[in-house]
Amino acid sequence: MESVTRLILPDVSEALRSDPSSVVEMTEELHSADLADLAAKLEPDLALRLLLALPVEQSSRLIEALERDKRVELFAQLCNQDLATAVSIAEGMAPDERADLFGELAEEMRAALLGRMEHAESRDVRQLLAHPEGTAGALMTTNFVALPADITVAHAIENVRKSAEEMETIYDAYAVDPHGTLLGTVSLRQLVLAPADKTIADVMEPNVIAVDVEADQEEVARVIAKYDFLALPVIDRSRRIVGIVTVDDVVDVLEEEATEDVQRLGAVEPLEHAYFQTGFWEFVRKRSSWLVVLFLGELATGSAMHHYTATFEQFASLVWFVPLIISSGGNAGSQSASIMIRALAVGEVRPRDFARVIGRELGIGLALGITLSVFGMGRVFLWEATRTMAMAWTISLSIVTVVVLGAVFGAGFPLLLRRVGVDPAVSSTPFVASFVDVLGLMVYFEIARVLLF
Amino acid sequence: MESVTRLILPDVSEALRSDPSSVVEMTEELHSADLADLAAKLEPDLALRLLLALPVEQSSRLIEALERDKRVELFAQLCNQDLATAVSIAEGMAPDERADLFGELAEEMRAALLGRMEHAESRDVRQLLAHPEGTAGALMTTNFVALPADITVAHAIENVRKSAEEMETIYDAYAVDPHGTLLGTVSLRQLVLAPADKTIADVMEPNVIAVDVEADQEEVARVIAKYDFLALPVIDRSRRIVGIVTVDDVVDVLEEEATEDVQRLGAVEPLEHAYFQTGFWEFVRKRSSWLVVLFLGELATGSAMHHYTATFEQFASLVWFVPLIISSGGNAGSQSASIMIRALAVGEVRPRDFARVIGRELGIGLALGITLSVFGMGRVFLWEATRTMAMAWTISLSIVTVVVLGAVFGAGFPLLLRRVGVDPAVSSTPFVASFVDVLGLMVYFEIARVLLF
Repeated sequence: MESVTRLILPDVSEALRSDPSSVVEMTEELHSADLADLAAKLEPDLALRLLLALPVEQSSRLIEALERDKRVELFAQLCNQDLATAVSIAEGMAPDERADLFGELAEEMRAALLGRMEHAESRDVRQLLAHPEGTAGALMTTNFVALPADITVAHAIENVRKSAEEMETIYDAYAVDPHGTLLGTVSLRQLVLAPADKTIADVMEPNVIAVDVEADQEEVARVIAKYDFLALPVIDRSRRIVGIVTVDDVVDVLEEEATEDVQRLGAVEPLEHAYFQTGFWEFVRKRSSWLVVLFLGELATGSAMHHYTATFEQFASLVWFVPLIISSGGNAGSQSASIMIRALAVGEVRPRDFARVIGRELGIGLALGITLSVFGMGRVFLWEATRTMAMAWTISLSIVTVVVLGAVFGAGFPLLLRRVGVDPAVSSTPFVASFVDVLGLMVYFEIARVLLF
Repeated sequence: MESVTRLILPDVSEALRSDPSSVVEMTEELHSADLADLAAKLEPDLALRLLLALPVEQSSRLIEALERDKRVELFAQLCNQDLATAVSIAEGMAPDERADLFGELAEEMRAALLGRMEHAESRDVRQLLAHPEGTAGALMTTNFVALPADITVAHAIENVRKSAEEMETIYDAYAVDPHGTLLGTVSLRQLVLAPADKTIADVMEPNVIAVDVEADQEEVARVIAKYDFLALPVIDRSRRIVGIVTVDDVVDVLEEEATEDVQRLGAVEPLEHAYFQTGFWEFVRKRSSWLVVLFLGELATGSAMHHYTATFEQFASLVWFVPLIISSGGNAGSQSASIMIRALAVGEVRPRDFARVIGRELGIGLALGITLSVFGMGRVFLWEATRTMAMAWTISLSIVTVVVLGAVFGAGFPLLLRRVGVDPAVSSTPFVASFVDVLGLMVYFEIARVLLF
């Protein structure tokens, strides 16, 4: 659909310049996600005119579908130009999207909007914003269908029909007692299939799977993925239902978490915005912190090298192999670390498997090290300046040891981090690489001292 | 719910040993995902007894919910022991899950099952298996609600009711003409809200977003994520609807793709099974291939070092900084590569942004390099053996140059790979590291030659 928005872009721009009201008809067949694409491609002042020209309902959908940075930018402009329309658009938004948006606005702007919104809506925003980021509470929406457990199926379908317009999903409804305690779930599918005179209590599924409002968003995602749910109820400590998390939000969470993991693996503090929306100095800040830490760690290699100056001054050829040896250990360590980080993230491996993992990695590291050492030995013999048995053994043994160290440490370090409650994706790989570099150098020169002197 | 399955495990094991039929009652309240957890924890022969004791319908759900490796193992055992039951369970499965399972079975076993299954089901399996892995066709299910466009809403609801039992989802239905051409979509929500005497053509959404049967599964995932769909229709070249992909399958695809990306970033061929299900030699094979390639690349560092032997024999202290200098370039390169790989994956950056990206990375690399060089200079002055202005400038200039090279090459290489149609996650990071190592060494010694001699 990319091409569609690109195709109509010139016409829409033209219409917004001459007669904004005419765009209503031009865009009425567009899905809100495409409408958002279109708005993102328009010049800022034209995007603003579009928002003001469309029916409020459609503008609310447009704002919901916009990518985060654009959304904040455009909505802030709207607030400055026409606060009343901004309030109407905000009131028409889904509660979870609205709270996310408000969380990014400047404080005075947020206060101005909240002061003019209807009481129920502004209270809702405040409550949702109170939940810490990354929890079920921050992810959930408060628009869900709650059904008293004692009404009939016919009555329930009538309720669903009436409230359908403003609900995020009507496919799962929640049976509650008068205090709002969650008693069971009932899907629209079950309602449609059940006899009209049964009560909700008769047809509901009483074994409800729900998450606590403080649960981590990754846990929420795993539960929804495991049970193939469309929505998951969120409860407070007294088992009252306070909201639902829908599967489309989980898709976003999974994307976001994957991005963070990849960035952390590359030793970058997770970026909050898209690549071109991230400012120059923000980039420098997010990257320099880890880069400096790694640099300071790597300073130890200088001390190690210094310590062995006498050794390599006698055998200059030893130095030629330094980058090769340490990179072999580093690469093996990166492999183990990335395998382990992902295995931990999806729950295939737990910290209590430590001994078993180390045992496997010892064996795998040995097999990998022996493979590489064959190539290393070949290199020694092909090179006239290094062609001695002692040198061949020094290089081979060093490669095997360094690769084993890399594999074991690379797998073990993320497991230890997880055990002490730290996200193992946080810079495991580069840390492992620095540590294995220093250790590898020491191993290499010690082996050389024994075999060459 | 983890704890629940663990809690009832001993009782269920006992019951399966003494009186298998009694487990039906014990497990009837379990969600199929928890039932599958339970089966995975049972000894293999008891898991088999469980499958045979449960009603076929429940066994089908259990097999669907099992994790892939366990599923193939258990189902193969079942085929060997009781082919008739295996056929019934397979017939009760969702078409997409069934085709995935059959694709993993040995050929004779698959043929034996297909020969005994009802014609419609076996043809369905063959058709689904014909689609290449990783395409919309391989991901889709063929159980969806198709509604003739000319029937009334009341009639349609009746149709949905009747077919609901066997459908993967009834929340989206598809309006078709007599040839099966996709005309529009209509959600159960719209059906429930619409007047009963309207026709489907009146209430359907005629602007259908659909994917081609050959579309890549990542594209399918992006479309579903963008539009917040619960299901996406899959069409053939004549726009006939051939299946639907549901959002729960997309959640699995996103998980799988994220795992593959992380493993590739760590220079590991993507693993097909969970950590403990992956065999020793499979691990060695999947890791050694890249490790050897990287090792061969890194051999060039030996030649570079060799070339500069005279230089560092005169200034031994130059060697001390070798690991530090090359790791700085490597780390900066890893950062840029992982940022770029993820930005490409989620579509924030395209290959045509090449010049803009390189420009930014030049600037960012410069800022990062200058930051690190301050620490590098500090190290030179703190160390009595190296404390000279010439050495300080050599180290600083080298760090700046190497970090800039790392940042530019780390961002540029994935972009180039994407432009020529190769997945940029394939070992970009380690390749960048090797390349930057060799280049970094040359830069370092050349700068030293100019400044120190």
